[in-house]
Amino acid sequence: MSTNDDHRFDASYQGAPGAFSEDAALALLGTAARAPRLLPCRRFEEVFDEVRAGRARAGVVPIENTLAGSVVATYDLLAARELVIVGETVRHIRHALVAPRGATVDGLRVVHSHPVALAQCEGFFRRHPSIEAVAVFDTAGAVEQVVGEGDVAHGAIASARAARVYGGEVLEDGIQDDPENYTRFLVVTRPDDAPPPLAGEPAGERTSVVFTVANAPGKLYECLGHFARRGVDLSKIESRPMRGRPFEYAFYIDLSGAAADPAVAAALDELRVSTLSVRVLGGYTRFAT
Amino acid sequence: MSTNDDHRFDASYQGAPGAFSEDAALALLGTAARAPRLLPCRRFEEVFDEVRAGRARAGVVPIENTLAGSVVATYDLLAARELVIVGETVRHIRHALVAPRGATVDGLRVVHSHPVALAQCEGFFRRHPSIEAVAVFDTAGAVEQVVGEGDVAHGAIASARAARVYGGEVLEDGIQDDPENYTRFLVVTRPDDAPPPLAGEPAGERTSVVFTVANAPGKLYECLGHFARRGVDLSKIESRPMRGRPFEYAFYIDLSGAAADPAVAAALDELRVSTLSVRVLGGYTRFAT
Repeated sequence: MSTNDDHRFDASYQGAPGAFSEDAALALLGTAARAPRLLPCRRFEEVFDEVRAGRARAGVVPIENTLAGSVVATYDLLAARELVIVGETVRHIRHALVAPRGATVDGLRVVHSHPVALAQCEGFFRRHPSIEAVAVFDTAGAVEQVVGEGDVAHGAIASARAARVYGGEVLEDGIQDDPENYTRFLVVTRPDDAPPPLAGEPAGERTSVVFTVANAPGKLYECLGHFARRGVDLSKIESRPMRGRPFEYAFYIDLSGAAADPAVAAALDELRVSTLSVRVLGGYTRFAT
Repeated sequence: MSTNDDHRFDASYQGAPGAFSEDAALALLGTAARAPRLLPCRRFEEVFDEVRAGRARAGVVPIENTLAGSVVATYDLLAARELVIVGETVRHIRHALVAPRGATVDGLRVVHSHPVALAQCEGFFRRHPSIEAVAVFDTAGAVEQVVGEGDVAHGAIASARAARVYGGEVLEDGIQDDPENYTRFLVVTRPDDAPPPLAGEPAGERTSVVFTVANAPGKLYECLGHFARRGVDLSKIESRPMRGRPFEYAFYIDLSGAAADPAVAAALDELRVSTLSVRVLGGYTRFAT
């Protein structure tokens, strides 16, 4: 790291300390020698803007959850902000019931969490019909609040790590309905920056692209054909509305294979002919963390 | 209407009275002779469940907004609940600043609304930096609350109609950043029910389908080819995660054309061969309202 970099955070992320995004950033950017310096942000926009402004070397953002689906704010910011994807990881999401010290499950009247986390723990609320679920905008922030206020009738759903961060007690761990709960996180940087070294075992190459097409029948089919004919696997497709063009869409695709792979590169060349616009959002490695 | 139907609501919708979904239901199901009887529901699940249980003849639900994108809760419920789409309409969304009588814009300190509505009015908050935006879970519900409490420092963002419903004052109308703000609403019924007569001018036929494919390269391309080769236009594609199959997706497509149209019917027959599962969610008319 150059001395010029000493004042920069290693990464920005959305949420309060203890958030699942912070977990991902610690796993991707930590080393045996040094824990990463991380910058919590209230909103996804700020995560991207702190990287653009150079306050953070990278941003770590969720892009999809296997139960809730795509994180559309991240998709829109990938298109709007001039950052590139330089890595990704998939993290298992495990929800814990956290409360101030001295609380018991039977004594809880209200449990706070993000609406997605509440929806992923419906079984818990069915088993405890006297507990009211209250939606707030942050899982770890909910823990900070209930532990700070110290009311033993109030709990929160977040990671067990969030309980440690704020000195709360884990009353139950693994309370999500479905254990197959994973979130995929991306690392983004400025295109003119060297990508930071990422921790974990390399687990395959990916290329992500966003493109727009003329509003004509068969256009999406034509675009996907460039990849299908070469055996390039499309691992995800997402459509997002375009501002000012009602009921027209930008398409985001994730491909298995490096952007420099001859089949991927040839397909991208053809894609440029079929489309109104193409932007390669990044060619990057998935890391098992 | 048979006497047997007399006890049923004409439609259920999500939100408090004054909600944009109620607007759509009034426009689609109203007649010169009679205003529809509508059942407000707190959650999208309840909208579907009230139709399944027979308390409401139809449900009116948003499926996409041209700025915010797909309403994923509706997509998931279309797959999970056994209802069919019998009609749709597109409504222009216009946001008003509403407050208790006697309030002024300069006197406001806090404005409450749904996070999507707040995000669509960012320019208003930039022009009024002393006003704090507070996210709640319902636009019309926010009006009900601020008018009920009567504090002239608190406003809400919702439709101007919500102001009339609760006796609030419209301080500014049309405060959204982008005037090209439209929401598409669907009408769903039980498959064994006769579709209700819908108001408005017919504006084209649509067919909606959800399907799943084996996890193999080129499968989505193969599926779209059945439509593209016949010139059947795909107006929307959406992917949603599948529970228990991490990083696999169900695909929802909207087609221009009636399900009984020979080209659409032939393409659907081929789609059944290419896929693991296909369900036609409905063949229906769009109404201009």
